[in-house]
Amino acid sequence: MKSKQDKVPTEHFHALIMAGGKGERFWPLSRESRPKQVLSLLGDKTMIELTVERLLPLIPRERIWIVTNAGQAKMMARVMPKFPKKNFIIEPVGRDSAGAVMLGCAQIAQQDPQAITALLPADHLIKDIKGYLTVLENAFRYAARSGDLLTIGIKPWEPSSAYGYIERGEPIPFRAKGDVRFYKVRKFVEKPDLSTAREMLKTRRFYWNAGMFVWSVDAIRQAFERHSPVHAEGWEEIIRSSKGYMRGGFLNLPKISIDYAVMEKARNIGMAEGEFDWDDVGSWSALARHLPMNSEGNAVKGEALTVDARDCMVFGEKQTIALLGVKDLIVVQTADAILICHKDAAQRVKEVVHKLPKKLL
Amino acid sequence: MKSKQDKVPTEHFHALIMAGGKGERFWPLSRESRPKQVLSLLGDKTMIELTVERLLPLIPRERIWIVTNAGQAKMMARVMPKFPKKNFIIEPVGRDSAGAVMLGCAQIAQQDPQAITALLPADHLIKDIKGYLTVLENAFRYAARSGDLLTIGIKPWEPSSAYGYIERGEPIPFRAKGDVRFYKVRKFVEKPDLSTAREMLKTRRFYWNAGMFVWSVDAIRQAFERHSPVHAEGWEEIIRSSKGYMRGGFLNLPKISIDYAVMEKARNIGMAEGEFDWDDVGSWSALARHLPMNSEGNAVKGEALTVDARDCMVFGEKQTIALLGVKDLIVVQTADAILICHKDAAQRVKEVVHKLPKKLL
Repeated sequence: MKSKQDKVPTEHFHALIMAGGKGERFWPLSRESRPKQVLSLLGDKTMIELTVERLLPLIPRERIWIVTNAGQAKMMARVMPKFPKKNFIIEPVGRDSAGAVMLGCAQIAQQDPQAITALLPADHLIKDIKGYLTVLENAFRYAARSGDLLTIGIKPWEPSSAYGYIERGEPIPFRAKGDVRFYKVRKFVEKPDLSTAREMLKTRRFYWNAGMFVWSVDAIRQAFERHSPVHAEGWEEIIRSSKGYMRGGFLNLPKISIDYAVMEKARNIGMAEGEFDWDDVGSWSALARHLPMNSEGNAVKGEALTVDARDCMVFGEKQTIALLGVKDLIVVQTADAILICHKDAAQRVKEVVHKLPKKLL
Repeated sequence: MKSKQDKVPTEHFHALIMAGGKGERFWPLSRESRPKQVLSLLGDKTMIELTVERLLPLIPRERIWIVTNAGQAKMMARVMPKFPKKNFIIEPVGRDSAGAVMLGCAQIAQQDPQAITALLPADHLIKDIKGYLTVLENAFRYAARSGDLLTIGIKPWEPSSAYGYIERGEPIPFRAKGDVRFYKVRKFVEKPDLSTAREMLKTRRFYWNAGMFVWSVDAIRQAFERHSPVHAEGWEEIIRSSKGYMRGGFLNLPKISIDYAVMEKARNIGMAEGEFDWDDVGSWSALARHLPMNSEGNAVKGEALTVDARDCMVFGEKQTIALLGVKDLIVVQTADAILICHKDAAQRVKEVVHKLPKKLL
């Protein structure tokens, strides 16, 4: 990927993977002590392994960082023995994504003041790795040259009310390697209802906000200075000496997302158009779309036997599951719990989790 | 129950329990090696234990007989250690109910030529034991005096297409102990459709055929002689020496029910009116009616947590089962299998069983 002709500082490319999710939506497979990123939802590999491995052609493990809490770091270290332990950046408490971004980027800046960092979710699914890396590499190059904050907008293939959107503005001329287009960001849009989403798609100006960003550590530091001084102060303290700050100042940070703290206020934001497949796999019904189908149209992992059963998903670990005369069901089974829910209720699994006895959390 | 005034031969009262069912309809709890009668579907006791125990105020264990196969006899002996082993009457092969009745009654006749025998299913549910025993005692007395074949007809409390019916004829005068009425049987009626069942109930002449009969061994022997000579020959051979017959003649008996072989042809049939509750508990949805309800109207045995779930049945042995946004489901879970079916499909569980791998039968 590296060539001598262009002076792209590939040795300064870093990735910061945000792995803070609780994964309640994948109960009973996910638990407090086993969130979505360490689950093998598709195939044998965990979501975090897939996320790290798809970056390796572009960024070596030494420059991939994972910001998370201590318990989850332990678990991820267990499933990824090759991953450098020092590259886990540990939050003492959760302070939402603004806190995690500030902590992660400041620590990277301490190691490499010229770092260009991609901010990436730990548990999303991307199958077109080549397409993904092409966009990502160009995004790094753009961020390095422009000093802008850059987001990657996923070109939507259907109206969806499950995602936030990015509205693009003017095209930005940039000589990309491969067919990747850049635009100014006009605005970020909260999750719309379905009919609004349909209208938005007609305009061809709206993209899914996948929570992927690329910026130089200096650009994000300046953005904090301008839009969220409390985070900028934290940054300064970390650069001087992180240990004291982690026991003090960090605990006092407000719980606020990077979108609210910075992105929605900043002006210098570009967007790289992502045409690869992407799915945040935000619920069991989202996962169902990626599992193999049996002849009756049921998505099955594990042992299942279906008679007159349609459009169901079975995710089994233990017993054989027999479905008879049912449709649109999600069935997930683990050693100590079984979830049976209607596909339309997949977003409401949290309601079950909030009623569970402790031993099942 | 015995008094010196009436000369009722209570010491000749026997019960012959028919325990041949495979119980496929209760898969996955029932298996080839664990049919319905040895399941604890309601409370801690198995269906066969409940069947035997409810007879004890009227008939001691020594005069209760169970006709079944060798494997099931072993299992029942295990759950009922007090039951006399010699009272299991073993069929070498299944020859439908006519074969079982002939074998059972002939063996009882060998022990007690004056026996009056009640023929009873092994796996039905009756809660009003006092009402049941009152009808049964009067049925014994009637059968002893009249020499008729007697059936017990259950007074229906709702139209049902799940049962066969008995149409009553003229009342038979009989001085019963307690309020039990006797009628001639006009005819046996196969399971009707629901609208026919409704019309039948309006006439007040129709009763559910619960498969309960009472007769002297001599009366049933004569009935075989008249209506099914092959069974009468078997009877004679058993009286002479059963061992040879069991290895030879019995195997050649036709597979035919006692209803077809005898009851639908015989003329001397009376019916005792049964006003006690009765349920053959023929499927999971039938069982659901007898389980305790939670506040959302779900019948639950085991650990279940329901959120926006209605009219479901959960029968759990292992994991906690969470239901979310579903209705009218039956969920049954064992150590190696889980059944999830719509209530309307409960009669079709056999279709699942017929597709199962051997290890799950």
